[in-house]
Amino acid sequence: MSAPLGKDLLGLEHLSAEQITLILDTAEPLKEISERAIKKVPTLRGATVVNLFFEASTRTRISFEFAEKRMSADTVNVATAASSVTKGETLVDTAKNLEAMKIDMVVIRHASSGAARFLAERIESNVINAGDGTHEHPTQGLLDLLTLREKFGTLQGKRVCIVGDVLHSRVARSNIWGLTKLGAEVAVCGPRSLLPTAIADFGVQVFDRVEQAIEWADALNILRLQLERMQGGYIPSLREYNRVFGVTRERLDRAPRDLVIMHPGPMNRGVEIDSEVADGPHSVILDQVTNGVAVRMAVLYLLAGNAPALAEAAKGGDR
Amino acid sequence: MSAPLGKDLLGLEHLSAEQITLILDTAEPLKEISERAIKKVPTLRGATVVNLFFEASTRTRISFEFAEKRMSADTVNVATAASSVTKGETLVDTAKNLEAMKIDMVVIRHASSGAARFLAERIESNVINAGDGTHEHPTQGLLDLLTLREKFGTLQGKRVCIVGDVLHSRVARSNIWGLTKLGAEVAVCGPRSLLPTAIADFGVQVFDRVEQAIEWADALNILRLQLERMQGGYIPSLREYNRVFGVTRERLDRAPRDLVIMHPGPMNRGVEIDSEVADGPHSVILDQVTNGVAVRMAVLYLLAGNAPALAEAAKGGDR
Amino acid sequence: MSAPLGKDLLGLEHLSAEQITLILDTAEPLKEISERAIKKVPTLRGATVVNLFFEASTRTRISFEFAEKRMSADTVNVATAASSVTKGETLVDTAKNLEAMKIDMVVIRHASSGAARFLAERIESNVINAGDGTHEHPTQGLLDLLTLREKFGTLQGKRVCIVGDVLHSRVARSNIWGLTKLGAEVAVCGPRSLLPTAIADFGVQVFDRVEQAIEWADALNILRLQLERMQGGYIPSLREYNRVFGVTRERLDRAPRDLVIMHPGPMNRGVEIDSEVADGPHSVILDQVTNGVAVRMAVLYLLAGNAPALAEAAKGGDR
Repeated sequence: MSAPLGKDLLGLEHLSAEQITLILDTAEPLKEISERAIKKVPTLRGATVVNLFFEASTRTRISFEFAEKRMSADTVNVATAASSVTKGETLVDTAKNLEAMKIDMVVIRHASSGAARFLAERIESNVINAGDGTHEHPTQGLLDLLTLREKFGTLQGKRVCIVGDVLHSRVARSNIWGLTKLGAEVAVCGPRSLLPTAIADFGVQVFDRVEQAIEWADALNILRLQLERMQGGYIPSLREYNRVFGVTRERLDRAPRDLVIMHPGPMNRGVEIDSEVADGPHSVILDQVTNGVAVRMAVLYLLAGNAPALAEAAKGGDR
Repeated sequence: MSAPLGKDLLGLEHLSAEQITLILDTAEPLKEISERAIKKVPTLRGATVVNLFFEASTRTRISFEFAEKRMSADTVNVATAASSVTKGETLVDTAKNLEAMKIDMVVIRHASSGAARFLAERIESNVINAGDGTHEHPTQGLLDLLTLREKFGTLQGKRVCIVGDVLHSRVARSNIWGLTKLGAEVAVCGPRSLLPTAIADFGVQVFDRVEQAIEWADALNILRLQLERMQGGYIPSLREYNRVFGVTRERLDRAPRDLVIMHPGPMNRGVEIDSEVADGPHSVILDQVTNGVAVRMAVLYLLAGNAPALAEAAKGGDR
Repeated sequence: MSAPLGKDLLGLEHLSAEQITLILDTAEPLKEISERAIKKVPTLRGATVVNLFFEASTRTRISFEFAEKRMSADTVNVATAASSVTKGETLVDTAKNLEAMKIDMVVIRHASSGAARFLAERIESNVINAGDGTHEHPTQGLLDLLTLREKFGTLQGKRVCIVGDVLHSRVARSNIWGLTKLGAEVAVCGPRSLLPTAIADFGVQVFDRVEQAIEWADALNILRLQLERMQGGYIPSLREYNRVFGVTRERLDRAPRDLVIMHPGPMNRGVEIDSEVADGPHSVILDQVTNGVAVRMAVLYLLAGNAPALAEAAKGGDR
């Protein structure tokens, strides 16, 4: 069982519940490494990882970079602006060139849905999808799962509602796949203009009013409202969006139970989420960030062909 | 005495003379590390340092990056353009996120005065101010002090005049605090429009003519003239500025003693300083750059909680 | 024989055949390091290398960065946009500052011909030219030579034709010097408007039609057509360029022998080279990329003053 995940991590859609659970089980003990004074294990020593980002992203790029460095990999960042892509080179040529330089892994973020798969099919290196268009953002889905599992013990039977612009959200898509596979009940809530028309096909409930979602759910995963959606005519105004779909303390106070609050960031405070909620006692938003590094370390660890038995990796430091 | 400087380095205003001296004493033996073939000690091995730069700066960012790498830290650079800040995220959310990823230190440069303190009060990681608005740039102040101390043996009683746009200069402010605390006499010289109105409150002399400054001083710290000041109407023209305030060889030749010449860079040769002066025998401008790396290594070393006794750190290589 | 190449690598023009051969002989065994799981040797451990890029370039920058990291150097990237150069600082001041920070090597790319030499004459650190204007790009020339030598066993008497915009190409210039010194016969082929007027002085043949080049040559080195040349009036249109100078399978099928196909990348597929040729059985384009890392490791190795005898460096890993 040398490659329990296969060569790449492209999305959660095609992973089994066992594979997802393996990643979460692997991530959990790795969290302790980031708590050490010497945050470093030699697992990927001398391996070369390229962070190939065709879209700007501080948070995801840094999270991967920390994960890579804490596994002792050599990392190189390639951002769009500085890239040959501006000279008209194709994605495949860029990738083939990286591969010819003998790299081990590529972490790719790209505006086109399917870009990660396209790449993975054409190079031998491991490919990790760090977000492709509106398709998937699997490590975000995994960190959300890990966070909920830590909170609830199990995902089985838990009710999670994704609130906001589900239509354009790769985070939503990876969440729906992952949550469903691990036995959670999933709902979405948002303006109809921002929900996929065939959303019921995913086996999820649809709520038109955030009050209904709050009444139903154990946890809310509140998506960032892309501010350009307003120009696109999807929503009338930010104020109006906040009035109808904003998760506020007043609304949560009327819930039958304490809801776990998640947000993938960056937040628009006062739009999709109020500060009192974001910083409130049931918010796990910063736990999500912490778990992001651990989940990415686990993915790197497993794709590199390490055995699922992790006792040593987590214990053996690099002193 | 585990944290002789406290948690952060935000400015020189609130440091004691003893604390400043401790940093300089710590920096001095660390200089030797950068002279080695293997420029590396294991002090910060496995520690994670983020260089969070909201303003462009090659020189300061690189100097910190060298300091961090020579202490064996893992460093990650975050520059404005690539940052979530462009998505409207607040500075605090950015910082809280970094902290959730379990970082040890943040080096921050920001256009707003007070940004470093604002951050330091909200996160547990050590914060180093790499320049905040027109407030302070403490490591620049420290490297200037180290350079002068090397030259003069002591700062006590030495006369240092800061020449130029003191009003907008965080370098000037950190210099005034540091020099005064270590017993130097401080003066400023520049167009009245570029001097703070309450400058006398700082306990410094004011010279209107650079000839007076040259006659009085043991050392000149010549500030960079921000070229946008001309558009701002602060000065009539670069030529006029050079004619009245430019430090030229002719003017220095008439001085009663050899003046030590400093400049924080980047220089506008032919504006605030002539090339003959910048490259002349009494210029310590490149010593300042060399000392910058050492001072930053010392700050990293001390903030990380290392004991002031440095014999081993300086001697023990990483072979 | 501590510095077989001298202090810098500025171009192939002033290297002897022996020096070029030494670099190739050094590069060859280093290729194996990049094939390892742990792609790392301690040769440059603790050395500081700055990649100072005044022109955007993914490919060359990454290739150098991999070479540096696989030799265990500490690397710092400086790109134009983020640089003090935007504040009007001179190249020399930038370089003097880097040197004052005690760096070991600078890899420089610059739009001005001669920038690398200008720098090398003013600082003590080793300088490696990563492309200066239309002058030279010596590591590209070296990787082309290594690729051809691997293919042919020797360059002696082999016929290499450089096809395209020779006039503006530093790649062409480094190739002509290197190939000639190692005993190859060199020709150029392209629109007269894109060939240097005094090209015959280089001792090369000139072909006006690509069919003639194909009939004559053992290998084609097909240059990238800078698309801005069209606006410059050098060529009527891309389609026209492809019709007359494009290297197509049809044209190669009529050749008297199999031609080795090279291209420095990034390729304009369908303009100077057709995809069938770029991806065809005689293309060594990806071998060039692989050899690029090895050649750069060899240059770093030799400039750092390591002995030409490489047995240990190639064998001794960093485990």
